[in-house]
Amino acid sequence: MVKIYALCVHLIYSGIVQRSREELKAIRETNPGLKPTLAIIQVIEEILRLNEDSRVHGIFLHLPQSFLSKSVRNAIKPQKDVKVMVKVTLVRGNLNIQNFLSCNSSLDAPLVGKMAVLLGLEGPLKVTLQFLLQNNGMMVQTRQWSSKHFHFEVFTKMFVAAVVICQHVVRSSRRWIQEQQYQPWRLRPLKLQPLSPVPSDIEISRAQTPKPISQLAQEIGLLPEELEAYGNTKAKVHLSLLNRLQHQPNGKYVLVAGITPTPLGEGKSTVTIGLVQALSAHLKLNSFACLRQPSQGPTFGVKGGAAGGGYAQVIPMEEFNLHLTGDIHAITAANNLVAAAIDARILHEATQSDRALYSRLVPSVNGVRCFSPIQMARLQRLGINKSDPSDLTPEEIRAFVRLDLDPEKVTWQRVVDTNDRFLRKITVGQANTEKGHARQTQFDIAVASEIMAILALTDGLGDMRARLGRMVVGSSRNGQPITADDLGVTGALAVLMKDAIKPTLMQTLEGTPVFVHAGPFANIAHGNSSVLADKLALKLVGEEGYVVTEAGFGADIGMEKFFNIKCRTSGLTPDVVVLVATVRALKMHGGGPNVTAGVPLPKEYINENLQLVADGCSNLKKQIQITHLFGVPVIVALNVFKTDTQAEIDMVCRIAEASGASAAVQCHHWSRGGRGSVELAHAVKKVASQKNHFQFLYNLQDSIVEKIRTIAQKVYGADDIELSPEAQAKIDYYNQQGFSALPICMAKTHLSLSHMPEKKGVPTGFILPIRDIRASIGAGFIYPLVGTMSTMPGLPTRPCFYDIDLDPVTEEIKGLF
Amino acid sequence: MVKIYALCVHLIYSGIVQRSREELKAIRETNPGLKPTLAIIQVIEEILRLNEDSRVHGIFLHLPQSFLSKSVRNAIKPQKDVKVMVKVTLVRGNLNIQNFLSCNSSLDAPLVGKMAVLLGLEGPLKVTLQFLLQNNGMMVQTRQWSSKHFHFEVFTKMFVAAVVICQHVVRSSRRWIQEQQYQPWRLRPLKLQPLSPVPSDIEISRAQTPKPISQLAQEIGLLPEELEAYGNTKAKVHLSLLNRLQHQPNGKYVLVAGITPTPLGEGKSTVTIGLVQALSAHLKLNSFACLRQPSQGPTFGVKGGAAGGGYAQVIPMEEFNLHLTGDIHAITAANNLVAAAIDARILHEATQSDRALYSRLVPSVNGVRCFSPIQMARLQRLGINKSDPSDLTPEEIRAFVRLDLDPEKVTWQRVVDTNDRFLRKITVGQANTEKGHARQTQFDIAVASEIMAILALTDGLGDMRARLGRMVVGSSRNGQPITADDLGVTGALAVLMKDAIKPTLMQTLEGTPVFVHAGPFANIAHGNSSVLADKLALKLVGEEGYVVTEAGFGADIGMEKFFNIKCRTSGLTPDVVVLVATVRALKMHGGGPNVTAGVPLPKEYINENLQLVADGCSNLKKQIQITHLFGVPVIVALNVFKTDTQAEIDMVCRIAEASGASAAVQCHHWSRGGRGSVELAHAVKKVASQKNHFQFLYNLQDSIVEKIRTIAQKVYGADDIELSPEAQAKIDYYNQQGFSALPICMAKTHLSLSHMPEKKGVPTGFILPIRDIRASIGAGFIYPLVGTMSTMPGLPTRPCFYDIDLDPVTEEIKGLF
Repeated sequence: MVKIYALCVHLIYSGIVQRSREELKAIRETNPGLKPTLAIIQVIEEILRLNEDSRVHGIFLHLPQSFLSKSVRNAIKPQKDVKVMVKVTLVRGNLNIQNFLSCNSSLDAPLVGKMAVLLGLEGPLKVTLQFLLQNNGMMVQTRQWSSKHFHFEVFTKMFVAAVVICQHVVRSSRRWIQEQQYQPWRLRPLKLQPLSPVPSDIEISRAQTPKPISQLAQEIGLLPEELEAYGNTKAKVHLSLLNRLQHQPNGKYVLVAGITPTPLGEGKSTVTIGLVQALSAHLKLNSFACLRQPSQGPTFGVKGGAAGGGYAQVIPMEEFNLHLTGDIHAITAANNLVAAAIDARILHEATQSDRALYSRLVPSVNGVRCFSPIQMARLQRLGINKSDPSDLTPEEIRAFVRLDLDPEKVTWQRVVDTNDRFLRKITVGQANTEKGHARQTQFDIAVASEIMAILALTDGLGDMRARLGRMVVGSSRNGQPITADDLGVTGALAVLMKDAIKPTLMQTLEGTPVFVHAGPFANIAHGNSSVLADKLALKLVGEEGYVVTEAGFGADIGMEKFFNIKCRTSGLTPDVVVLVATVRALKMHGGGPNVTAGVPLPKEYINENLQLVADGCSNLKKQIQITHLFGVPVIVALNVFKTDTQAEIDMVCRIAEASGASAAVQCHHWSRGGRGSVELAHAVKKVASQKNHFQFLYNLQDSIVEKIRTIAQKVYGADDIELSPEAQAKIDYYNQQGFSALPICMAKTHLSLSHMPEKKGVPTGFILPIRDIRASIGAGFIYPLVGTMSTMPGLPTRPCFYDIDLDPVTEEIKGLF
Repeated sequence: MVKIYALCVHLIYSGIVQRSREELKAIRETNPGLKPTLAIIQVIEEILRLNEDSRVHGIFLHLPQSFLSKSVRNAIKPQKDVKVMVKVTLVRGNLNIQNFLSCNSSLDAPLVGKMAVLLGLEGPLKVTLQFLLQNNGMMVQTRQWSSKHFHFEVFTKMFVAAVVICQHVVRSSRRWIQEQQYQPWRLRPLKLQPLSPVPSDIEISRAQTPKPISQLAQEIGLLPEELEAYGNTKAKVHLSLLNRLQHQPNGKYVLVAGITPTPLGEGKSTVTIGLVQALSAHLKLNSFACLRQPSQGPTFGVKGGAAGGGYAQVIPMEEFNLHLTGDIHAITAANNLVAAAIDARILHEATQSDRALYSRLVPSVNGVRCFSPIQMARLQRLGINKSDPSDLTPEEIRAFVRLDLDPEKVTWQRVVDTNDRFLRKITVGQANTEKGHARQTQFDIAVASEIMAILALTDGLGDMRARLGRMVVGSSRNGQPITADDLGVTGALAVLMKDAIKPTLMQTLEGTPVFVHAGPFANIAHGNSSVLADKLALKLVGEEGYVVTEAGFGADIGMEKFFNIKCRTSGLTPDVVVLVATVRALKMHGGGPNVTAGVPLPKEYINENLQLVADGCSNLKKQIQITHLFGVPVIVALNVFKTDTQAEIDMVCRIAEASGASAAVQCHHWSRGGRGSVELAHAVKKVASQKNHFQFLYNLQDSIVEKIRTIAQKVYGADDIELSPEAQAKIDYYNQQGFSALPICMAKTHLSLSHMPEKKGVPTGFILPIRDIRASIGAGFIYPLVGTMSTMPGLPTRPCFYDIDLDPVTEEIKGLF
C-alpha cells in the first residue's frame, strides 16, 4: 500500500499571530511593501525544503488566503500533496471547542455557532493547533502550536483557506496515488536518416541530438524524484522504483549471445541496440536495452568505443565510453582502499606489539574505550562474546588485533582503468618507510575487480554491503580466509559505492531507453551487465514490453554464465535467446585463414565461399544446442556485412532453422538503424510469447568438480577435465571453508569452444585442463582458470589516442570510434 | 555584442505541401485522428532537438496556425526565440513575387494584391521559401525549400501565422537579450538554528536540507543552459558564462590565509565559509566561496572531511568529500594514461627497429599513409618540414620514431586517490611480457599530479590543452625534455579533462553559493583552488559582491604562491587578505609544548596563558608583514575556541592591530554559523573598499636563484640559500632549456617559517637548503625542494573507515567528520 505522510507549513501563522496587529503595522511602515513578500518567500523556502525531503510525502498549506499566491502553489511538487487532519482547540475562559478538520470536513453550523460565541467574548483567547500525520491509516501527533493573541479576521481566513485546501488535497492525493502506479509510455522516438556510405560512429553520434534525459525519463514513466541527472544526457535512476512498481508484472527478458567470435567481435552490442531501436521506434513496443559499461582504458588503446556502432548506437557515444557517471572510478577507489588497508595492516602488525595494536585499534576517546560495530562483528566471528574492551584476555586480544595475513597469500590486487602493461607484475613497499615489507603483486584493469562483479550481481544496498564485507582478500598464516569485514573497511566501501549502485539511463540513436550498468570482465568474472538494471527495466517496460540484455563472449561462456550465475542470483528467467552470427566468423570456423585485428581480411572473407560457410555452421549448430540445454528457444540473428552474398545469407538461415533455431533472420541495423532489425524484432515478439522450460545446467549442491565437469562436457564438448595439483588443493580448501556450493565461473578463452584458441568449429576429443581455481566469495562464484587469463591489457605502438582530440572552441571530440 | 542565430521548423510544411490534398485526406481516413497529433509531435521533437543544440539560439516557428497549440509553444525554451527573416518567392508562369518577411513586416497592400493575382491564375505555382540566419548583423542564407503544389488556404495561413509569430519573436528577442545581461541576485538563505553543544559535522550537515542546486543557480543569475546538474546538490557551471558576462565588472577578491599552523590546522576553511555565510545571509551582500576539492584518500585515513566544520560547512559534506563530480578521478585517468604511454613507448622502442616503429606509428590505412596532426607538430619541433611520410630520410625517421626516453630520467609518476603508503616506491614491469624492462618508480596521491596544478591555473579549454601538451615527462638519453605532445597523448588528455574544467557549484549551510574546483597539493604545487572558479565567481557576484578564496598552509607558503603564481597567471588582484590565527597556534609559537594529532592537548592550551600568547604573536606579526610586502591590507580573524579566554582574545586583537593589521576581529562561525562572523564581514567590507597597491615579490625575468633567494630572505627570514649540487645542475639544465622565466613554487614544510618544522615563532639566522629542484612545465612553475616532501600519505593503524558506514535503508552515511 502507498504510505502517505503529512507536514505543515505554519511558520507564517506563528509569525503573524505572535505579533500584535500594531507590531505588524509598524513592520509594514518601516519596510514598505516588503513584509508580505518576505513572508511568502519564507513559505516558499519551507516548501522547497520539504519538497526535497524524501521522508516527507506531503505538505499541508496552512496559510491565510492572501498567501495562497500562484508562486506558493507552484512551489509544491505535485507528489507532495496529501491528506491531513488538523486538530483545532479554542479556549476562552472555561469554554472549550475542539474539532478535527479533515479533508472531507466543511464548517458545520454548530461549530460555526460555537466559534462565534467564543470569539465574541471578552478575555484572552487561546488557540491550539495540532497537526496530525496520517500514516497508513495510523494517526501520529506532531508539533503543537498555540497562541494567546488571536484575531478574528485571521482566524476565519485560516478556516476558509483550510477547507478550500483540504478539498484540493483530496484531489491531488488521488492524482498522487495514480502517479505511483505504472505509467504507460509516451515514447517519442528520434528520427534517423541513415546515410550511405555509413559515416564514422562519432560522426553519426554527433549528428543526432539526444533528447534531454529528463524528457526520456518522463516518457517511460519515471517520476522526477527517481531521477538524478548527470548533465543532460545521462541520469542515475533510484532503486526506490523497484518498490514503487513491485506489483507490476515483468516484461519479456531477451538475451543476446553469440557464436564463437573472431578476434574482431561479431556485433552482439549492435544487435542488442538495433533490436531495441526496432522494437521501440518501429514496432512501438516498450523496450529497454541493458548494456555493460565499458572499461575506459581500452578506449585509448586498440579497441575503440563500445557503444554499438553505425546506426545502432548509444548516444552520446563519448559519454558512454568515458567517465559516464563515475561508477568504474568508484569501484577503483573502493578496490584500492582495500588494497591499501591490507598492506598497511600487514606493516602495522609486523611493527607493533599486541598491546600497542589493541590500544590503537580500540582507543580511549574522552576516557571511554569501545568497539565499533564492525569490530564487534569480528569478535563474534572469533567466538569472543564480549563487548567491554577491558574484558578481553591477552589471547583474545591477540586473536582480535592480528589478522596475521600471509603476504604470500594476499589474493587482492590493486586496479586502474588504464591499459598499463607495466603494472602486470610489480613490487610494492620498497620505500624506507615500509621497513623492508616489500612484496610482489599486480594491478588489474578496474573492471576485473571483484567489486565490479558484486555491483553486477547485487540486488540492493543491504545486499551489496554484505557482499563487500564477505570479500576474501587473502588468508592468514594458519589458513583462515581474511575478509574486508576483518579489515574494518566494509562501511567505507559501501559509502564509496552508494551512487554506483544506481543504473545509468541513456538513449539509443532513435531515442529509446538504455540502462548502462556494471561491466565485469568476461574472462575472470561473469561478463554480464547488472541484475539491478535488468530488474528496473523489466518493471518499466511493463508486461507487454521487452528487456534486451547481452552476454559477453560466445554463448558457451557469456550465456552459460548468464543462466547459471546471473539468472540464478536474480531469480529472473529469460524468454528467448538471440544468437548472433556473422558470415565472417562462420567462414573462420569452416577453415578460413586467421582473422587478426589491424590486418586486412583475407580474400576468403571478402568473396563468396559457400563451402566455408556450410562447414563453419557446425559452431552455430553447437551453440544452438547449448541454448537448448537450458530449455530456452533461440533465434539466430545474422549480422549482415556488405561483403556477404545472398546465397551465403540464405544458407546460414536455412542451416540455423534446420539446427533447431525457432527463427533465423538477417539484420541490417548497422547501416539502417532500427528499421534494419524489424524482422528480428518481429521474430523476438513471436518466440518470446511462447512458454519455455528454463532450467539450470547443474545444481549448486553438486561438488565443485562435478559442476566443472558438467560445463566442460555438456557445453564445451570436452571428454573430461583434468585438475592440476594446485586446483585440487584449492578445491579441498574451498570445501573445508564451506565455499563449495557456489556456482562456477569458467575463465576460458572465448576464441574456441575448447581451451585452445586456435581450434575453431566444434573441437572434440580433448581434456579440459584446470590450471588453478580461485574464488570471488563476495560476488559469489568460484572461477577455475583454464589457461592464462590476462587481466591487464597493454597499449599498442600507436594507440588510439593519437587520433583523439578535443576542439577547444566547439568542445567536439574527434577520433573516437 | 550578443550574437543571434535563427533556425526554422518547417518539416510539417514540407510534409503537408509535398502531399496533395487528396493524399492528406487518404492518410487521415486510414489513420483516423492520428495524423495531426503525429505532426505536432514531430514539431515538438524538432523543437526539443533545437532546444538542446547550443549552437542554435533561436527557433522560427513556421507553421499553420492550427499547429500553434499550447504544447508546441511550451516546448520552446524561452531563450530560443530570435529575430528571423524569411525570403518568400512565388513564381507562376513568368510572374514572380519576392518578399522579405522580417520581424517588423506586416502584409502590405501591394504585396497582398500581387499575391492574389498570382494565386488566382491557372497553372503550376512554384513557391520558394528561404530562411535567413541573422548572425550579428550579417545575413547568412540557409536551406531553401520549394514546392510545385501549393494551396491557397495553406499559404495564407502560413502568412498570418508568420506575421503573428514574428511580432512575438521581437518581444521575446528583447527578453532573451535581457536575460543575457547580468542578473541581480535573489538569494534566499537557508535558516540556521545552531545547537549547543555543537553536534558532529555530519549531523549538522544532514540536519540542513540543501536547496535544489538548480534553484540556487537561478537565484544567483545563472541561465539554465549554463548548468549541468549532477544529482540535486551539485552542478557543473559552463565556462561560456565568462563570455556572457565579459563586460560585467568583477567583485572584490578576498584571500583567506593563515599564520604558521599547528598540525591540527587553524580553520581557514571554516573562516572562509563562515565569512561568506555572514556576507550573503546576514549582510545581504552577494558573496561566493571558492574552495579546493579535497583528496578523497585522506577522508578514509586520519584527516576526515574538508568541507569546513561546525556551523560553517559546505553541504552535503559527504558529497563534497567523496567523488564530487569526478574531477579527481578524471585527473587520475589522464595522469595514468601518460604513465602507461611512457612505459609502453620505452618497451616498443626497445624491441622494434626504426622501420617497424615507423610503419606502426604511421600505418597505411586503405593504402594511404599520413601523419596525424600531433605527429606533424612533433615533426615541426624536430625541424622536419615534411608532410608526406614517404619523404622522410632514415635519419629523420629515426629522430621521429625514437623519443629515446631515459628510463632513469622519467619524472612522471602514476597516481591514485588512496592513502597507499606501499606505493611510495615500487618496481614496475616485472612480468615476462615486459621483457626485462623493469624500473623503479612511485605512485603519488592524485592531487599531487601536475594535471591538478594545470586544472587550477588554466583559463580555458584551449589553454588547458596547450599546458597538457607541454608537460615534461622525462628526458631523452641525450638530455632533451620529452613532453606529452611527443607521446601523442595531448588530445586524449584534453578529452578526459573536458568536464573537469567546469567548476562545481555547491552551497553552504546557509544556502549561499560555493565553487569547489581543483585542489593542487600545497607542498609540491601551489595549493590554491582554480583560477576559473574565481573568475566565474567574480563575474557572478557583481561589482558590489565578494569572492572569498583560500590559500593552503601558512601565509608564507599558500599566500606567497597565491600572489606570485596564481594572481600572476590569472591577472586578478586581491583586495584584502584575511589572516586566520588561533590562540592555540599562537601559544605553540610562544613556546608551548608540541601539539600532536590524536593526542590530548597539554594544559597550556586549555588554561589561560597570556605570556605564551604574547610571545607567540611574533609569528602573527611576521605573517602580517609578509602580506604587506605585496601591498595588500590584512585583517586578522581570530578563530575562537571555547577554551580561549577574553583576555587572550583581546591581547591577540590588540597586538594584531599594533602590528599593522587593518582590523582584528574574533570569529564564532564554528558554533554560530554566519552570524558568528558578521563582525569579520563588516571589516572585510570596509577594508576591501580601500584602494591598495598590489605588487609581486619578484620579476619573472630574475634568475631562478635570485627568485628563490628573494622568497627565502623576504618571506621566510633566512639569511641566505644554499644549493645542493643536484639543485645547481637542475638550474643549469632549466636555464639551457629556456624554463628560467617561470615563477617559483617552494616545497617547504608548513609547520615553520623556516625549513625546520620544530622551529616555531619567527626563526632567524638560518640558511635555507635547496635539496633539489623540479619543474612542472605544463602548470608553469619551478619547484625547489626544501627537505623531503611526502607525496603519498599512509593509513594509520585504525583508519577513519572503522567508523564509516552506510545505512542500507535510509542511505544515510555515518562516521564522516
